[in-house]
Amino acid sequence: MPRREPSRSGRFSYDGLDRVVHEKARLGILTSLATYSDGLSFNDLKDLCSLTDGNLSRHLDVLREAGLIEIHKDFHKRRPQTTCILTPEGRERYLSYIDQLTHVVRDAAPERPRTAPQTGELGHPTDLAPA
Amino acid sequence: MPRREPSRSGRFSYDGLDRVVHEKARLGILTSLATYSDGLSFNDLKDLCSLTDGNLSRHLDVLREAGLIEIHKDFHKRRPQTTCILTPEGRERYLSYIDQLTHVVRDAAPERPRTAPQTGELGHPTDLAPA
Repeated sequence: MPRREPSRSGRFSYDGLDRVVHEKARLGILTSLATYSDGLSFNDLKDLCSLTDGNLSRHLDVLREAGLIEIHKDFHKRRPQTTCILTPEGRERYLSYIDQLTHVVRDAAPERPRTAPQTGELGHPTDLAPA
Repeated sequence: MPRREPSRSGRFSYDGLDRVVHEKARLGILTSLATYSDGLSFNDLKDLCSLTDGNLSRHLDVLREAGLIEIHKDFHKRRPQTTCILTPEGRERYLSYIDQLTHVVRDAAPERPRTAPQTGELGHPTDLAPA
């Protein structure tokens, strides 16, 4: 059996897709917080991400415990308000995740489907016209 | 309290991120199968996605039950071989997912962080220089 190209092993394992960030609701929360760099109130996050109170709370806890966000409680117009903001580490992990996501999108470019490799010859797919 | 811009509600909910496709290992499997449009053997998939036999089997079952892939069992050089291939529906759902992923990457462009909205004024963030 011919040897495989070692560089092909794990080609689509996407190890850089941080599971804390990848979860769909948390991805929305982090993208909101990356967009609004001064932070967002609990209610604005709930609205932007279409989440229930319970769901948002649960995901914010995960993100805070992982060190990706900080949660501040203060008052706005005499009413208690919870504000969430990305930590520097959170921004870094988020951007590194997005970098990996860019690779996925690039890999998925439908312009270049390939023929099936012969087993053991994954290193040499042949480009074809679109299926 | 002023009315919110309705268009901002759910802005980051990413409803199009199909959960069947979004799971990290399955995203790797589907990207492999989208890349090799004639299908891939079980062993090649295992290698490309760095998955164990058990993990790969489990995810292939989920994808087959959802109608995204077909699994064929035949012989290759007198040895039994399992081949997986994307169905037309699978390709469509995968590409629609990737389309949504492109929106996430675009939303995440770090060049344009915004100031925090005043609560109730999410429709009018102000663009700032990068933080």
